[in-house]
Amino acid sequence: MAKEYDFSRLRALFINCTLKKSPDKSNTQLLADISINIMKKHGVEVDVIRAIDHDIATGVYPDMTKQGWKIDEWPEIYENKVKAADILVLCGPIWLGDNSSVMKQIIERLYANSHLLNKDGQYADYGKVGGCLITGNEDGIKHCAMNVLYSLQHLGYTIPPQADAGWIGEAGPGPSYGDKLDDGTIAGFDNDFTNRNTTFMTWNLLHIAKILKDNGGIPAYGNQRSKWDAGSRFDFENPEYR
Amino acid sequence: MAKEYDFSRLRALFINCTLKKSPDKSNTQLLADISINIMKKHGVEVDVIRAIDHDIATGVYPDMTKQGWKIDEWPEIYENKVKAADILVLCGPIWLGDNSSVMKQIIERLYANSHLLNKDGQYADYGKVGGCLITGNEDGIKHCAMNVLYSLQHLGYTIPPQADAGWIGEAGPGPSYGDKLDDGTIAGFDNDFTNRNTTFMTWNLLHIAKILKDNGGIPAYGNQRSKWDAGSRFDFENPEYR
Amino acid sequence: MAKEYDFSRLRALFINCTLKKSPDKSNTQLLADISINIMKKHGVEVDVIRAIDHDIATGVYPDMTKQGWKIDEWPEIYENKVKAADILVLCGPIWLGDNSSVMKQIIERLYANSHLLNKDGQYADYGKVGGCLITGNEDGIKHCAMNVLYSLQHLGYTIPPQADAGWIGEAGPGPSYGDKLDDGTIAGFDNDFTNRNTTFMTWNLLHIAKILKDNGGIPAYGNQRSKWDAGSRFDFENPEYR
Amino acid sequence: MAKEYDFSRLRALFINCTLKKSPDKSNTQLLADISINIMKKHGVEVDVIRAIDHDIATGVYPDMTKQGWKIDEWPEIYENKVKAADILVLCGPIWLGDNSSVMKQIIERLYANSHLLNKDGQYADYGKVGGCLITGNEDGIKHCAMNVLYSLQHLGYTIPPQADAGWIGEAGPGPSYGDKLDDGTIAGFDNDFTNRNTTFMTWNLLHIAKILKDNGGIPAYGNQRSKWDAGSRFDFENPEYR
Repeated sequence: MAKEYDFSRLRALFINCTLKKSPDKSNTQLLADISINIMKKHGVEVDVIRAIDHDIATGVYPDMTKQGWKIDEWPEIYENKVKAADILVLCGPIWLGDNSSVMKQIIERLYANSHLLNKDGQYADYGKVGGCLITGNEDGIKHCAMNVLYSLQHLGYTIPPQADAGWIGEAGPGPSYGDKLDDGTIAGFDNDFTNRNTTFMTWNLLHIAKILKDNGGIPAYGNQRSKWDAGSRFDFENPEYR
Repeated sequence: MAKEYDFSRLRALFINCTLKKSPDKSNTQLLADISINIMKKHGVEVDVIRAIDHDIATGVYPDMTKQGWKIDEWPEIYENKVKAADILVLCGPIWLGDNSSVMKQIIERLYANSHLLNKDGQYADYGKVGGCLITGNEDGIKHCAMNVLYSLQHLGYTIPPQADAGWIGEAGPGPSYGDKLDDGTIAGFDNDFTNRNTTFMTWNLLHIAKILKDNGGIPAYGNQRSKWDAGSRFDFENPEYR
Repeated sequence: MAKEYDFSRLRALFINCTLKKSPDKSNTQLLADISINIMKKHGVEVDVIRAIDHDIATGVYPDMTKQGWKIDEWPEIYENKVKAADILVLCGPIWLGDNSSVMKQIIERLYANSHLLNKDGQYADYGKVGGCLITGNEDGIKHCAMNVLYSLQHLGYTIPPQADAGWIGEAGPGPSYGDKLDDGTIAGFDNDFTNRNTTFMTWNLLHIAKILKDNGGIPAYGNQRSKWDAGSRFDFENPEYR
Repeated sequence: MAKEYDFSRLRALFINCTLKKSPDKSNTQLLADISINIMKKHGVEVDVIRAIDHDIATGVYPDMTKQGWKIDEWPEIYENKVKAADILVLCGPIWLGDNSSVMKQIIERLYANSHLLNKDGQYADYGKVGGCLITGNEDGIKHCAMNVLYSLQHLGYTIPPQADAGWIGEAGPGPSYGDKLDDGTIAGFDNDFTNRNTTFMTWNLLHIAKILKDNGGIPAYGNQRSKWDAGSRFDFENPEYR
């Protein structure tokens, strides 16, 4: 391993948005483990959160206990895990061709903190990178991933090339990723497309995260909410009316 | 203007996917001009292509004249403009809540070259950045943008933070961006959200494109199709069966 | 009112998937009330459920208390309200351009009962009609509605023409439907597109629901899961290999 | 075959939005043929159009020759085939997880006639039914279908239950529907999910089309654009401000 592939200054967070509580097997987690293992081998400190095992409130405020909810584990997760992570990978299953409700809940909660700015006045998630892992048994990886990656870039994350991967089987109900099949093989494990994409996603997340970290984030000019609100326009001009 | 905001080594390409041929006014182009003007002021060489003014064939091969089409202007556009651009911004209108057919046609043609690799064996678009500008009169910026940005990252483009912008009016038919209104104002021109997002998109495209260019692209390890196909696995391991 | 517009044999259910618990104002509910009021004037018995006010579990099983959840109000809602309704209208807000997590949760729970069949062996929701109402402040009615309506038709609902309506304002943050504006008017109330679509949706739901009810549902031939599984093929033949 | 399953008064139109011109094999057409054959066996007159074989202009006007295009075969197709069809099935391939550009082009042209009204002042497509067939090799049936079905219902088509079907293989590149495999079988032909859904879609299109035709269309009250524009409100009332 060349020295340049030491990513020990990086931290990553995988949030698994399965609908199944522990100790039920999460097929999505099996796929995430491929990526997590590569990261760990290269020195990254990796946190994994299975959202449904936590009592996370629903809503678009940073702390829902201030909105009448009795419990909300999200503020602590956000403070200790999300903010600390240079790399955020949202993982989830496909239901009826779309992201799980838990995935939407997590994105809503991330969005609830989208007003936060860093010391330069940029959105707080600038300088971080985002990715996405999706599993299902029949259809919808790209549909789910395009929503997740869009949401992350909207919040301020940079999306490296090919920052999503996933596995589905042939159209219709069938085994999920990691299920043992009658012939003794395991669904998805030999899928070259899934394995390659998961590997490439992982490395691209690492490379871009490191580049941005070494760079001290994204240069603070032309993209600071605080300065825009104070009147800076960074060479913006309305088009001439024609 | 600080020296670091000299982007004169960068080239950008804006492809406008309006359904209207020249010389009809393209409302989308007006919005694109905001971004183009900022880039030009900072030394970027900018190409603009209005796709529908060209005789671009439909299909998923690099050169459709080899598939029975009489004319296909795409191979020349791809060779001279797309390959040369460090920054690609796909721009288009919304029709029935979705991207225009011309946008899909352009994405199909970009996809047709997705097998091309750079000298390191990475996909050819690695090291470039992508963005998206959408206009309409009623609804659908995010829906369109999530598809465009997803497609670009799938091809190998890096997506900077907040790499999309757009304008729509209130629900229902109404004026398009840049249309003169009865009260003498111009639709969208005073929309702070549109102006800010267009400006931030532009600067984030510039910053990330420059960082990647200065870096010589994305580090070539863990993400080379040629090496994967030759058997390298970059620490990928199948998850343990549980 | 002509006799034929007496819909007193019909029952409707509106599920509001707002993220806000009572007694907070739901902007979406205001829009739903337009439709509800038309239905009630014509004799329809209308139920309204604000999902987040109920302790509904997350998952894809009919009764999540059998999967380790302590409480799950869904089975009772499903039994008493969903099954009884000839018309189901899913209503919700837009967050980050997509459906709310509560909307996805409700669709997951509806999906959990998608194995149920009626006495003819058709899926249980055959013969019912579905619609969708969406509100937000900036963008995404069609994106949200296309997912909701798709999900409903997948479950067995018939989708009448123009079975969705909604309101959003101009691009960017701003007032929500029903918010009082500085000039004394109320956001969305004068929007002809929103009002017309909400009215047409309502009447089309009523007309198609009545036609199907008078018809005794959808004719039971060619669409019975029980018979397909028992070997009936209803003139299905594989295409000839060419 | 019971008498009630004689649909000889119905006409259907299948528009195949493949990117491949004749005589290349269209995999999507093979799937469509299943549905077409069932319809023909029951007396339906079926038209099939392979859009890319025609010189159809791009745009959102009924006749693009009036907008500067030299040729536009669409007006004749619309007049002779679309208007005559009680059942419209849009068929197409998946590219990069989304509908083909030809599918979007056709939807744009259908949308271009969305201002047309029938004799009752309803939108011209009221009383007709719509469906969707999608094939690809890796992912995206539901994503594509939800856009197509949404577009059709927006135009005025009624969407029967389960009005879409399709086939994809396991994640990643692979055979297309109808391709001969190494083991002598043919991709997709034995897929029970695809076959059942295609069959059910076909029968539900037939049943609902017949019911609506026998009914003389959708009752003309509450849904007439001409009357709404003339001031009728059909019991619409703005919600009370709260």
